[in-house]
Amino acid sequence: MCAVGTGPDDLQDEVRFPTTTPEETFGRAVQFFQQQREEPLTAIGIASFGPVDLNPDSPTFGYITDTPKPGWARTDFAGRIRRALGVPVGFDTDVNGAALGEYRWGAAQGLDTFIYLTIGTGIGGGGMVNGKLMHGLVHPEMGHIRIPHDRDRDPYPGSCPYHGDCLEGLAAGPALEERWGQRGETLPADHPAWPLEADYLAFGLVNIICTLSPQRIIVGGGVMQQPQLFPLVRQRVQELLNNYLPVPAILDHIDDYIVPPGLGDRAGVLGAMALAEHAAVTAS
Amino acid sequence: MCAVGTGPDDLQDEVRFPTTTPEETFGRAVQFFQQQREEPLTAIGIASFGPVDLNPDSPTFGYITDTPKPGWARTDFAGRIRRALGVPVGFDTDVNGAALGEYRWGAAQGLDTFIYLTIGTGIGGGGMVNGKLMHGLVHPEMGHIRIPHDRDRDPYPGSCPYHGDCLEGLAAGPALEERWGQRGETLPADHPAWPLEADYLAFGLVNIICTLSPQRIIVGGGVMQQPQLFPLVRQRVQELLNNYLPVPAILDHIDDYIVPPGLGDRAGVLGAMALAEHAAVTAS
Repeated sequence: MCAVGTGPDDLQDEVRFPTTTPEETFGRAVQFFQQQREEPLTAIGIASFGPVDLNPDSPTFGYITDTPKPGWARTDFAGRIRRALGVPVGFDTDVNGAALGEYRWGAAQGLDTFIYLTIGTGIGGGGMVNGKLMHGLVHPEMGHIRIPHDRDRDPYPGSCPYHGDCLEGLAAGPALEERWGQRGETLPADHPAWPLEADYLAFGLVNIICTLSPQRIIVGGGVMQQPQLFPLVRQRVQELLNNYLPVPAILDHIDDYIVPPGLGDRAGVLGAMALAEHAAVTAS
Repeated sequence: MCAVGTGPDDLQDEVRFPTTTPEETFGRAVQFFQQQREEPLTAIGIASFGPVDLNPDSPTFGYITDTPKPGWARTDFAGRIRRALGVPVGFDTDVNGAALGEYRWGAAQGLDTFIYLTIGTGIGGGGMVNGKLMHGLVHPEMGHIRIPHDRDRDPYPGSCPYHGDCLEGLAAGPALEERWGQRGETLPADHPAWPLEADYLAFGLVNIICTLSPQRIIVGGGVMQQPQLFPLVRQRVQELLNNYLPVPAILDHIDDYIVPPGLGDRAGVLGAMALAEHAAVTAS
């Protein structure tokens, strides 16, 4: 998805195309931006699928690293776009981009430590700690944490090719579909799929809360479009924490603690725009 | 434990006494510091058991909050010491203190994102992200993350009064003792307790790695005094990650990635000293 603009109230042009080969995909993206002739581009922001190299001192900074996506492993992404378009490029993971967008215009305004989690075809997490996006050794891969899996209740072995029943293997869209034999969005709201899904997501959230102590957790992605999920997840998080963290944010205001993206399904594209803005400021 | 000095090469005086009532304990600590007459104290650093209030804007900043320790809930700690001794006071969790000490003088020098974990009578974690100590909503409580627990292999239900079989409930010292009927340090090095212990610790470390992407994890505490544990934990972390994060730090240099404290069993007291140093710098 490519778009041009300056923020949520100014999202001017937008295009979607499938991720095919790097050659073709970069070609279409560059072409789209080159056609934007009304005003010159100031900067580009890329919120990329991962894993990516975010270390500015690395010779492969801005690359996709070891993805199983055919043709995409060890591909220069940020450098290629910068050379083609000649403007500063901000580059981060898709979830860190979305987190930055939420910080700039959405549900994380004014916070310095928060998480953006997406539950879709995969599970990914990013966010800010101490007012900066989380990078560290590589970048967070929150979908791959391990959680309790009661095989008597749920014999499904998990879908992750690396870990089987990690959080993503148990709770992302493909796991829902494979476990129940139909796509998640076709399951009725009172189906037993949802309390089970909420349990897994709550385990994941509890682990993130205990590890990072975020001031808020924003949860987006296709699976969270099921309106019954948020109340179930919030209740299970409270039950699992069992008053261990007796703070008002969790005990009394959990509806404001575990929230959908303030930018809705535009969190991703606006996140990339926030990365562009940041790159422009840094370059100037 | 109270001590006076300026760093690892200058740890001048040191005293240990049990944590009894706040009255008596604060009294002994204040008396110890008042007797230091050779040079005036510049600042005090407190690396406290938790949970504590670390929010400088809170009316209970510097307090122990909701501990089950009799008499200690809602006790002013930092303010009381500051009033008694009249010097700036740095205040943080014991594990954040140890993390700061490791950053200043030990195994985390030059890093900006790392974790300090202690495995002892409880399990606690702190550290830095983006060059600052982790606080967030409260502070990390890493001992209470949930991990897989195979009850066929290990029917022990866990010792945590809040969560049963969270990481601390399965892998801290009391769990070892209750599960095997004898204290951990009396179990032989080839006892099945240790591979099981390593499994639980590795699940914990993998979750922290996937959530935070630390550049290094420092693991201290009494349980880690068993020399057989580090190699077992490192190997299980690699097995559990299963090449998902193919970075040299994890694949090739895990002995430098999961490490004991550079300051050994002085990480705690030197951490408090680093907090004092930081308080002195901030105040001046």
